[in-house]
Amino acid sequence: MAKASRRKLFKFGAAAGGALVAASARAATAATAPAGPLSDPWGHSLGAGVDDRPYGQPSKYEKDAIRRYVPWLAQSPQADASFTPLQDQPGIITANGFFFERYHAGRVSVNPAEWRLMIMGLVEKPLLLTLDDLKRFPSVSRTHFLECPANGATEWPAAQLNSLQYTHGLIACAEWTGVKLSTLLKEVGLKPNGKWLLAEGGDGSHLTRSVPIEKALDDCIVAWGQNGEALRPEQGYPVRLIVPGWQGNQMVKWLRRLEIGTDPWYTHEETASYTELLPNGKALGFTWVAEAKSVISFPCPEKPLTGGPGNYEIRGFAWTGRGKIKAVDVSFDGGVNYSRAALQEPVLDKCMTRFTIPWHWDGKPALIQSRAVDETGYVQPTIAEARAIMGTAPVYLNNSIQTWQVLADGSVNNVQLG
Amino acid sequence: MAKASRRKLFKFGAAAGGALVAASARAATAATAPAGPLSDPWGHSLGAGVDDRPYGQPSKYEKDAIRRYVPWLAQSPQADASFTPLQDQPGIITANGFFFERYHAGRVSVNPAEWRLMIMGLVEKPLLLTLDDLKRFPSVSRTHFLECPANGATEWPAAQLNSLQYTHGLIACAEWTGVKLSTLLKEVGLKPNGKWLLAEGGDGSHLTRSVPIEKALDDCIVAWGQNGEALRPEQGYPVRLIVPGWQGNQMVKWLRRLEIGTDPWYTHEETASYTELLPNGKALGFTWVAEAKSVISFPCPEKPLTGGPGNYEIRGFAWTGRGKIKAVDVSFDGGVNYSRAALQEPVLDKCMTRFTIPWHWDGKPALIQSRAVDETGYVQPTIAEARAIMGTAPVYLNNSIQTWQVLADGSVNNVQLG
Repeated sequence: MAKASRRKLFKFGAAAGGALVAASARAATAATAPAGPLSDPWGHSLGAGVDDRPYGQPSKYEKDAIRRYVPWLAQSPQADASFTPLQDQPGIITANGFFFERYHAGRVSVNPAEWRLMIMGLVEKPLLLTLDDLKRFPSVSRTHFLECPANGATEWPAAQLNSLQYTHGLIACAEWTGVKLSTLLKEVGLKPNGKWLLAEGGDGSHLTRSVPIEKALDDCIVAWGQNGEALRPEQGYPVRLIVPGWQGNQMVKWLRRLEIGTDPWYTHEETASYTELLPNGKALGFTWVAEAKSVISFPCPEKPLTGGPGNYEIRGFAWTGRGKIKAVDVSFDGGVNYSRAALQEPVLDKCMTRFTIPWHWDGKPALIQSRAVDETGYVQPTIAEARAIMGTAPVYLNNSIQTWQVLADGSVNNVQLG
Repeated sequence: MAKASRRKLFKFGAAAGGALVAASARAATAATAPAGPLSDPWGHSLGAGVDDRPYGQPSKYEKDAIRRYVPWLAQSPQADASFTPLQDQPGIITANGFFFERYHAGRVSVNPAEWRLMIMGLVEKPLLLTLDDLKRFPSVSRTHFLECPANGATEWPAAQLNSLQYTHGLIACAEWTGVKLSTLLKEVGLKPNGKWLLAEGGDGSHLTRSVPIEKALDDCIVAWGQNGEALRPEQGYPVRLIVPGWQGNQMVKWLRRLEIGTDPWYTHEETASYTELLPNGKALGFTWVAEAKSVISFPCPEKPLTGGPGNYEIRGFAWTGRGKIKAVDVSFDGGVNYSRAALQEPVLDKCMTRFTIPWHWDGKPALIQSRAVDETGYVQPTIAEARAIMGTAPVYLNNSIQTWQVLADGSVNNVQLG
């Protein structure tokens, strides 16, 4: 057992080499900087200590790597969305600080000590759980993407926003930790006629969505952890539902209630919202799964080719709500010819996958595209193919191939072909 | 191409269901809260909008989930370490804000526009690279742990610090993105007598370490990305060397120079520091690989059993610098009997692995331990076995089995057996 009086005074630098490290550090404090400009001032001075920042933050030089929102997209910032800066995401994990937001009544600050989860309806034994209760159940950690079905909505009628962040930034990917929903449903005991689950959020909008029991028992997670720490407030702290591969709005935040019923609830958010009027006059509802999609993140409008003609690595992201990405093909001529990209391992289920392909740019204008194929064989459609299904005035489900136009000066523009 | 004048006014809530979402949100602003205390005030008010926090932060209720340091461990906070709050890490990814620090001359703030990497020595074509230059090379993303060899140093003579954070928190794990060192060495062209690589940091300490060329050509990464964003200043922004599975101090931060030579350099940090005087009078140097290790993170001194006797899930982390974790065994009786824990997939190379095992706690005192086995067959030693090799006054390389004593009141203490 620890007792301060018993501790051995192990010190950094003291055990081997004496106190030289700290002593030389102190000498540096007193040193006078040489006259004239330094090419590396950081190499000639003491930096900050471990005592100034108990929770780490990005470099001050990364101030442009932030979420952004479009002021005209909603009537209030509490009913709006901000977009992930995908152009600044290097791997499949989205930095927690970058995660896009989508609120219906703003980001609320739930006190975890007062939070409760009610599980009720067609169950043998209803439950009211505290956060500590929930954390006692067997848990899993799974890395999954989370995409808003409105990702790319502005691009349905035409190429409108000259930005990777705004055209594709309603997606993020994290390692989620929590209890499998199936574990909780086994605990409460489903009644035989319990065929649907309702998830309800605890914020002012009390967003509700219906989930068929097959999906609820498959891979859903009642999650409290996100990329190495507690769930962020933006993601529903302390607990949100993760419905892997399905629309982001089904992954109810600030989760407070799960109800089991016989039929879907046809809530506001699955009838008035998150449905799509098709050209034939029918409304498309319960469009759960995020179909295969991909986009090139380098180069892109925010990250042009700055070094002139020569060798580059083209990089991007692919994902599918139906399992794993099988392949990504990249075109440099607007879709006439495609070459197979390399997929970065591990390729995970319902997770962003990073792809790369080398490119020798000759300095001439080019039209670059990526096209994802998932393990079901589904191929990401062109914008024309997608419009043929969805019409020209849809809002949701734009998973079409993105075309970036590279100009001779290395700048990159959002265009649509044909 | 995007033109503001051409944009279609797609708005959230406006396309399907009218402006109801935003309108109801506004109504909520004006609503008067009911008199008396609310059990969920967050469900009766508007939260924050997307306009107030372009870079996300944790909940205010997570203010105890922070790095911590021990004031007596070093003479100056610029030559000290802070510890990862492992007790708050749910999966294998360490939140970037949690990453432990270890400085030799403080955390410097390098301007990426002025940063350069020199590659020189026994090469055909020396290179001086800007950050943009570096990013043009083919890249990889790999998830690896990073451990200071002094992790557990205070525990060599006796169980001293009653804390998971302080006994095991000099480790963290991230998805790193960058260029393989082998790619850069191919570019510069190694001369036949180039057998060692020197990596030099750009901070005031100019930390230097030698790496044998076989490791340099194997899996080392010159990394600029960390868990979904640019490398953090604490990790050497803009670029650090990742030497997977090897001691953290070899993963030189604020990397500025790579030199190829015929022999190791025997620098200060591999002779006066980071070596170990053995009982037989010989000094143990170039101890590169972090051997297999594990620890239970729930329960632990910071996270006791708060719910009384009953079912719990025991959770922890395991890692090895020699490849993948093959198994973790957990004992509830101080090492007399062991049961096999479940490993959370994916189990990755030189990466933290999460393990779990259910436990029915009868409410009596218990001694819980975890023991890792890696794919080479190496078994994590007891503290007695480790001391038999290293003596009783070592500093580094404490990878011994941790024992937590669970008391009848659910509290947890750091103890050592036998």
